[in-house]
Amino acid sequence: MTAAGETTGLSAQDLREIWPVLDAGERTQGFSLLEREEAVDFFQSLSAFSQAQIVEGLHGSERRLWLRSLAPDDAADLLQELDPELRTELLDELDPPTRHEVAALMAYAQDDAGGLMSPRYARIRSEQTADEAIRYLRRQARDQLETIYYAYVLDSTQRLLGVVSFRELFAAAPDRPVRELMSDSFIFAPDDMDQEEVARLLARHDLLALPVVDAAGRMKGIVTVDDIVDVVQEEATEDAHKAAGMQALDAPYLQTGMLEMVRKRAVWLTVLFLGQTLTASAMGHFEEEIASAVVLALFVPLIVSSGGNSGSQTTTLVIRAMALGEVQLRDWWRILRRELVSGLVLGAILATLGLLRIVAWQTFFGAYGDLGYLVAVTVAASLVGVVVVGTLCGAMLPFVLRLAGADPASASAPFVATLVDVSGVVIYFTLARLLLSGSLL
Amino acid sequence: MTAAGETTGLSAQDLREIWPVLDAGERTQGFSLLEREEAVDFFQSLSAFSQAQIVEGLHGSERRLWLRSLAPDDAADLLQELDPELRTELLDELDPPTRHEVAALMAYAQDDAGGLMSPRYARIRSEQTADEAIRYLRRQARDQLETIYYAYVLDSTQRLLGVVSFRELFAAAPDRPVRELMSDSFIFAPDDMDQEEVARLLARHDLLALPVVDAAGRMKGIVTVDDIVDVVQEEATEDAHKAAGMQALDAPYLQTGMLEMVRKRAVWLTVLFLGQTLTASAMGHFEEEIASAVVLALFVPLIVSSGGNSGSQTTTLVIRAMALGEVQLRDWWRILRRELVSGLVLGAILATLGLLRIVAWQTFFGAYGDLGYLVAVTVAASLVGVVVVGTLCGAMLPFVLRLAGADPASASAPFVATLVDVSGVVIYFTLARLLLSGSLL
Repeated sequence: MTAAGETTGLSAQDLREIWPVLDAGERTQGFSLLEREEAVDFFQSLSAFSQAQIVEGLHGSERRLWLRSLAPDDAADLLQELDPELRTELLDELDPPTRHEVAALMAYAQDDAGGLMSPRYARIRSEQTADEAIRYLRRQARDQLETIYYAYVLDSTQRLLGVVSFRELFAAAPDRPVRELMSDSFIFAPDDMDQEEVARLLARHDLLALPVVDAAGRMKGIVTVDDIVDVVQEEATEDAHKAAGMQALDAPYLQTGMLEMVRKRAVWLTVLFLGQTLTASAMGHFEEEIASAVVLALFVPLIVSSGGNSGSQTTTLVIRAMALGEVQLRDWWRILRRELVSGLVLGAILATLGLLRIVAWQTFFGAYGDLGYLVAVTVAASLVGVVVVGTLCGAMLPFVLRLAGADPASASAPFVATLVDVSGVVIYFTLARLLLSGSLL
Repeated sequence: MTAAGETTGLSAQDLREIWPVLDAGERTQGFSLLEREEAVDFFQSLSAFSQAQIVEGLHGSERRLWLRSLAPDDAADLLQELDPELRTELLDELDPPTRHEVAALMAYAQDDAGGLMSPRYARIRSEQTADEAIRYLRRQARDQLETIYYAYVLDSTQRLLGVVSFRELFAAAPDRPVRELMSDSFIFAPDDMDQEEVARLLARHDLLALPVVDAAGRMKGIVTVDDIVDVVQEEATEDAHKAAGMQALDAPYLQTGMLEMVRKRAVWLTVLFLGQTLTASAMGHFEEEIASAVVLALFVPLIVSSGGNSGSQTTTLVIRAMALGEVQLRDWWRILRRELVSGLVLGAILATLGLLRIVAWQTFFGAYGDLGYLVAVTVAASLVGVVVVGTLCGAMLPFVLRLAGADPASASAPFVATLVDVSGVVIYFTLARLLLSGSLL
């Protein structure tokens, strides 16, 4: 299919630019127009999702060719994007050692260390000298190693004894044994460690690769930092989607089908909507107050949204700090105190603004009837209350979710806002009843 | 200060766990208690912000020692966290070649390629043979190179001619000249490229390091992928903070002073609050309608928040897709069409739910007076309108901001919600006036 040697006028750069707006068929077609050499680079640089789209559109022999061009971890990722039937078919077409590697990788959850790792790492023996080890690595380098930056020292049962950086090996006296050069207090990831945790580990220790080890201490593969950049982006996107009150999309926005997108959004919108009907019910309880002082109704959106806004600030701060490992479960009390203070200060600021605004309109336009000044005080007091409730709810919800074993990032800003809205209505009208009883009401 | 050799009982692991809750003084104190060997690793793994806190708390000779233990790019980052006075003092204490390197790095904006790069990269000449190049690199490896994974081929004027991976050099026939091995169609970053763009480039091409080149084509340094993981995390945090309607914090949440945090939050809360006073004004225009049909007021929070929620979903989807490079400015029309359809479908879903809810309450409890069924229709129609307005506003705001040269991520969910709230009120009461005139009103 790929027109090797023939000039078609379509460059990889052109294709990359229009890529996001193409559908699966157009992508395969465009890809087939690339010159062979460009196509190889281009294919490598695609996400597993895009690679799978292309492979699905190609015919038998082309299909095999492109699948085989990938490293085993990338091939496993691609296969996991396909229908089970096509997946089995393609897996069978790999050569036996690669098939074995790929199948082993697919046994791991895609977002575990095991699902991220490559089994092609550089291995040496502790009794080799630096020079022997370098020669041994030089032979391995001819195969497809993921990185030679670190060499892993294994015993005969594949247990990981130590790690030596290639640079150390390279700079050492040629006859020093590996045993003396390797570090045996290395950082490693268990094969079932979550990818977010793996990313944190790599970033914290500024490593280029991390060995993945099973429960028996046997080396299974390495996770390299370039895979982690994708993980971090992916997790940030997932968290952003959840923070906006929807399920995270699995594919790029423009590639997600309309039905899929509406479904992922409608679930949360419905939950939030049902939550908001509680606000309507809460307001129903105060219908009499509203009837005798319609002016009260005007400030309801102002009050509930101020609570929601301050709550969503807090919940985002806490979720992000948890994602970065800055905040642990045991810090809840510290956060609660901090947010109580923040809430009081922010509430006071908004209360002052609200007071000034209503008093001004009342004084100059007589906008709010006989008891405008009392209404101003009610609104201001409610603002302090609702902002404090907002910050405290926003601060605690991620902890509650984490304690319950759920993802703290599900404490989306709109979810917090909806929780706070009901309390906002109750606070506001209760205060109104107290402050205005006998006069306006 | 550091009690070398003496056992204090505090391990780096212990210190790392309590780190987030310590203040600057406690951090320096805890750090001083570590054994020397652990302290070195620990210090390396800290953020520039934490390193600066420690260095500020140490005395003269210790201070110099720790600063000198860092690679030039990390030293530059640390210095940029300090007061200008202390910065100059410490810079003067570095040895002249390092001072020169660090000062050159500090001349770049911290979030440009130039501000991220390390000047310590492996360089070879095109006329060397593979074997000569490896021997030459072996000498350089004894110094502090950032990575030997790629070797950069420079001419006598420091212009970058090509890149060869160490693995290729290593696997090649020993007498092949570098010229034949190097790739001259390499990916590079101009020194003023924004760090987000650098991150995208590295991730897209799965590179471990990227050469940074000035306008004249001269090689200035390399950016390694481990620095990029930090960049991606940092940018994700910034975007999350902005999405929640606040200015991004510069330091970890628990390390940010209360005053600073309140200030960063209060600015946006105030803007949003002032926006919400428009909602109050808008409702004021419909005071008569509310007075004659209080039941209308009950559904205001439900309607405005449904618009806000769908708008914040859309704006987050678009911002994230822009951040990942999936959506360009020219895609605005495509997005608008998509979101119009989404908005109609989502609006219809919520309208159906709202209709069912009000009709049910009306039928079983007679909750909404004589004309409950007409109110139900009004609410349902308004929900469709407000959700469509919400999705369209949410979709277009990031484009408008980007066109205006601002950061699209400033189109925070609460900002969209506030914009939509005003329109929600107007849509709802205008429809109410039309549908209910002559009967309820």
